[in-house]
Formats: sequence, structure tokens, C-alpha cells
Amino acid sequence: MKKLLFIYLFLISVFVLYVYNYQTNNQANNQWTNNELRGTLDESYVMVTFQSGIDYWKRALKGFEDAAEALSVSVEYRGATQYDIQEEITVLEQVIAKNPAGIAVSTMDPEALNPVINKAVEAGIPIVMFDANAPKSKAYAFLGTDNYYAGETAAHQMAKFLNEEGEVGIITHPNQLNHKERTEGFRNTIANEYPKMKVVAIKDGRGDQMSSKEATDEMLSLYPNLQGVFATEANGGVGVGQSILEAQKKDSVHIISFDTDKGTLDMIQEGVISATLAQGTWEMGYWSLQFLFHIQHDLAESATNDQRLPRFVDTGVTVVTKENVTEYYPSE
Amino acid sequence: MKKLLFIYLFLISVFVLYVYNYQTNNQANNQWTNNELRGTLDESYVMVTFQSGIDYWKRALKGFEDAAEALSVSVEYRGATQYDIQEEITVLEQVIAKNPAGIAVSTMDPEALNPVINKAVEAGIPIVMFDANAPKSKAYAFLGTDNYYAGETAAHQMAKFLNEEGEVGIITHPNQLNHKERTEGFRNTIANEYPKMKVVAIKDGRGDQMSSKEATDEMLSLYPNLQGVFATEANGGVGVGQSILEAQKKDSVHIISFDTDKGTLDMIQEGVISATLAQGTWEMGYWSLQFLFHIQHDLAESATNDQRLPRFVDTGVTVVTKENVTEYYPSE
Repeated sequence: MKKLLFIYLFLISVFVLYVYNYQTNNQANNQWTNNELRGTLDESYVMVTFQSGIDYWKRALKGFEDAAEALSVSVEYRGATQYDIQEEITVLEQVIAKNPAGIAVSTMDPEALNPVINKAVEAGIPIVMFDANAPKSKAYAFLGTDNYYAGETAAHQMAKFLNEEGEVGIITHPNQLNHKERTEGFRNTIANEYPKMKVVAIKDGRGDQMSSKEATDEMLSLYPNLQGVFATEANGGVGVGQSILEAQKKDSVHIISFDTDKGTLDMIQEGVISATLAQGTWEMGYWSLQFLFHIQHDLAESATNDQRLPRFVDTGVTVVTKENVTEYYPSE
Repeated sequence: MKKLLFIYLFLISVFVLYVYNYQTNNQANNQWTNNELRGTLDESYVMVTFQSGIDYWKRALKGFEDAAEALSVSVEYRGATQYDIQEEITVLEQVIAKNPAGIAVSTMDPEALNPVINKAVEAGIPIVMFDANAPKSKAYAFLGTDNYYAGETAAHQMAKFLNEEGEVGIITHPNQLNHKERTEGFRNTIANEYPKMKVVAIKDGRGDQMSSKEATDEMLSLYPNLQGVFATEANGGVGVGQSILEAQKKDSVHIISFDTDKGTLDMIQEGVISATLAQGTWEMGYWSLQFLFHIQHDLAESATNDQRLPRFVDTGVTVVTKENVTEYYPSE
């Protein structure tokens, strides 16, 4: 019986040692991975936009959510429902009052949010801007489209459609900086790289369908040999499409538009619009959250450095044509 | 005695259950985090440069290593020892032959590496460019300094030193694109934003100390009221410093230089150079590895998209003055 007792004691000791060893190992492991890219679910990051209901933000939010899953943190989506800067200021202030782990903001005004953004950053809440910047604010970084480069991309695509030869026009929104940059990128690229192509007209489409249609009607009558139109904005692109359809020039004029809302995608499927440029909205959301996480967890460049994150990330554009258009319809 | 036996049995069962439970929990935990940002140590990422021994790459490699630690993967550093493109091609080919998980490349020639880079990307090895780009290659992204913006930053800093008033000059390397951009950014910012300042001379310093000193000597004799010089490159900055010292104008002329090699930092400590611009080399290395990891683990935007990562990341610049210069000396 005494022998049995020893055996039991021995077995118990082995188990105790095993469990002890297991736990110690695990602690060591945890210590080693303190610096790993993993947050906690009570750590909440917020995306703030304006006109929060529009489709445009969906892929940005998807990117934000995908990054949150990879980092094991939580996200929330908030926004001004209208195109109303006062509403956006109020929403941003409400978000800040909850002291979140970080905020990604797209602003409808490059100046108006600055006092609120700066107050938050000074209070230790990381903020990055995405899609539309507040360049003079204290936000750590901006993630969006380099619009000049987008214009260049449109020019190269137009050259491909036209075999590098022919007259083209631009329908744009001349008073907005992003549209000016798209126009410049397109125009300079055609002028510098395609000697047999020419930008014969640049017209104001005012960002709406009807004005853009009328501007295109006029352009078509002045330049009967026109072979291509670059619309720097989505409503304009649909207007250009209507004009071309009405003039029965669908097969002789190539349209390149911007963004991927339903009207544009439908016209690509119908062969009216030849291509559109999709912005890297998923990337904007994904890398915004990564950046915020890195500031929150002090994994970015040392705090003594005033440039702790990359200053600007050009998320790029993708050319959408009939061949890949189906991938751009929302999946629901 | 039988009672004692039961007690032992009970205790043993409790331990067995505890250990079993512990292990199960741990497995569940691992499963749940499949999608987390964690690689394996046999997953090796390589950084490839030229003139691989110079200090300039140290902080980029530190960023690369810091990201590797956070992601639990391995890194290697390889490079051409000389400023020799054939050697860099050979090194890159050797690296590719080992089929690494990804490669971050800085090229000394914007074209020459393209065939090798493209072959690797087509074979499924992710490549990103950092510091110096190969814009027409199939590399997924470029992470480096926006040189135009760096020139703007230098202009604002110069305006601060001069209370927005006075004559300034530029010593540059007029045939290299990055130096042209720095010069343009500086000149345009002074012209557009500081009406009481004027860029009176732009001279070729040929990227070396002696030529830059001579160019500055000449500039000082032509423009005796000169109050500032922007050197777009580090050797030039030291040459400008020597000229200013010789002319005993240390207290009346502000020099802004580029990069943070020892000669420049020493002259900042001595009060000869007023400021230099440090590039975000740590950020280049850190986010290069993050990007490569995201392609390797298929965590980036869907493969149907030809823009799976941000196209360009501007890692920004930091102004280094006497106040923070000690942080920029290598720590060994």
C-alpha cells in the first residue's frame, strides 16, 4: 500500500511540474509577443464621413473592418448624414467625447474641421485623414488618391482606346482642386507623350449630369471629329454618356469617367462608357486603421520624431472596363 | 486507506481535466487568430540595396527588422557593395534564386533592374521599391520621399530662420530628377508664399563638397546680402558650410541641408548648418515589410485588382536642428 502511495505521489508531482512548466512557457510566450500586432476588443476605432449613407464609403469601411479583424480590435462607423459641415463637426465632437482609440476622418472642407481635429490629437487621440484631406490640421497622415496621377492614368488608357491618335475633350469641375489636378494630369500626359493626340476642349460640367450633357452636346457640334471624352467626375460621366447616345456616336467616341457608382457601371456594361477609374477606397480604410493602431500602440517611429507615420499614401486607381465591371457592383 | 485512494484519484482527475482544458483553450485561440498578422520564422524577407555599407541604410534596415519582429518573420540584408548596377543585378538574381517571401529593393538606376524585378513578380515573389524607384517595373509599390514636398518644407524652414525676408540661393545637382524636384519645391514655395524673400541664384554643386564650396564662394561674392542657402544634397551642404566658415559669414547666412550623415550632423552641432532634412528611412523599411507580408499572406486587396497595395507612400521628412540633432547620431 505504501508503494502505491509513492506511485500516486510521483504521478501527482509529474502533473504539477507539467502544468507549472506549461504556464511558465506560456507566460514567456506572451511576453515575447507583447509587441505583436494584436489589440483588444474594447479598443474601438471610429470612421467618420459626410453623406454617410452613400455607396462610395462602403469599400473604405470594408477595408477598415478587415484591418480591425486582423488586429483584433473593434470599429464603429459614424457620419454626417447630409453634406453639411456643421453636422460633421458635431458628429466628430461626439465621437471624440467617447475617447476612442483612434479616428479616420474624411472631411468635406479642407479647413473647417481643423480646430476639432487638433484638439483631439493634442488630447492623445490619434487621427488620420482619408479620401479628402485637411492638410493644415495636426492629423498624422493622409491616405487618398493622387489626382494628378489619376489623370495621367486616364490619358494612357485613352491613348490605348484611340491607338494614340485623335481629338479628345475634358468635362470637369474647374473650381475644385482635385478636378483641376485630374485635368492637368490628363492634359499634360497627352501633350507630352502622344504627339498625334490633342486635347481640343475643356468644358465645365458643374458636377451635374444635365450641365455635363449640354457641355458635351456643344463640344460634339464644335469638334465633329472628337474621338474621346474624359469626365473627371461620375455625374458628369453619365451626362457625357447621354449626350453621346443622343448623338448616336456611341461607337466613335470613347468615354472615360471617374468612380464606380451604379449609373457609371451600368453604362460600362451597355458599352456607352468605355472605362472608369476606381479609387483605392478599400486601401484607404485598411491602412488608415493600421496607421491609427500603430500610433495607439506606440509601434510607429519614436515620439520625438514629428513624422511618426508616412505623411501621404497614394492609394492609386484601377481601370474598370467591360471586362472587369461585374466585380465592382456591390455584392448585396 | 481506500478513502485516501479515492482522494488521490480525484486529485489526479482534476489535474488531467485542467491540463486538457488548458490545451483545448489554447488551440481554439490559435484557430481564431489564423487571420492575424503573424508569420513564421522560416518566412524570410530580404532588403536589397547598393553601396550596402553606408550609414544611410541603417535606419531603413532597423524599420524592416522592427516590422519583422512585430510579424514574427525573418529578414536578411543583401546589397551591392559598390555603386555598380551590374553588381546589384547579380545580387538581386541570387536573392531571387532562394525564393524568399518578399524583397524590398532600392535601385541605383530607374530602368536597369526592371527585367529582374518583373521576372520575380511574375514568379510570385512580392517586390516593393523603397527610397529610389523603378517606376516602370512591376513592383507593387514605392515607399520614399516626395522630393517636391521636401523642397517646400525646406522653404518654410528657411522663411522661419529669416523672418520671411531676404535673399537666398540653392546649391543642387541639376541633372538628377530628385534634386530638380527639391529645387522646384523650394523655389516655387518661396515665390508663391514669401513675397519679401527671393531666390537669387541656383548653382550646380555636382554632388561633391569641393564644387559646392566653390559654387558658394562665387554666390557669396555676387550676392553679398545672401542670407540663406539650401543644399539639396549632403556633400554639397558640407561644402556650403566650408565656404561660409571661410567667408566668416557663419552668423549671417543660414544653411539648410539634406540627410543626416556625420559631417552634416557635426556642422549642425557647431552651428554652421542651421538645419537638415531627415528622410523617413525607418518608415520606408517598416512599411515595406508590412506591404510584402500583406501580399505574401494574401491580406491585401483582392488579386483581381491590379492595385493591391497603395501605389506610392511619401514617408515624409523631419527638420533636424541643434535642438534635436543628438537623436540622429547612430546609437553605437
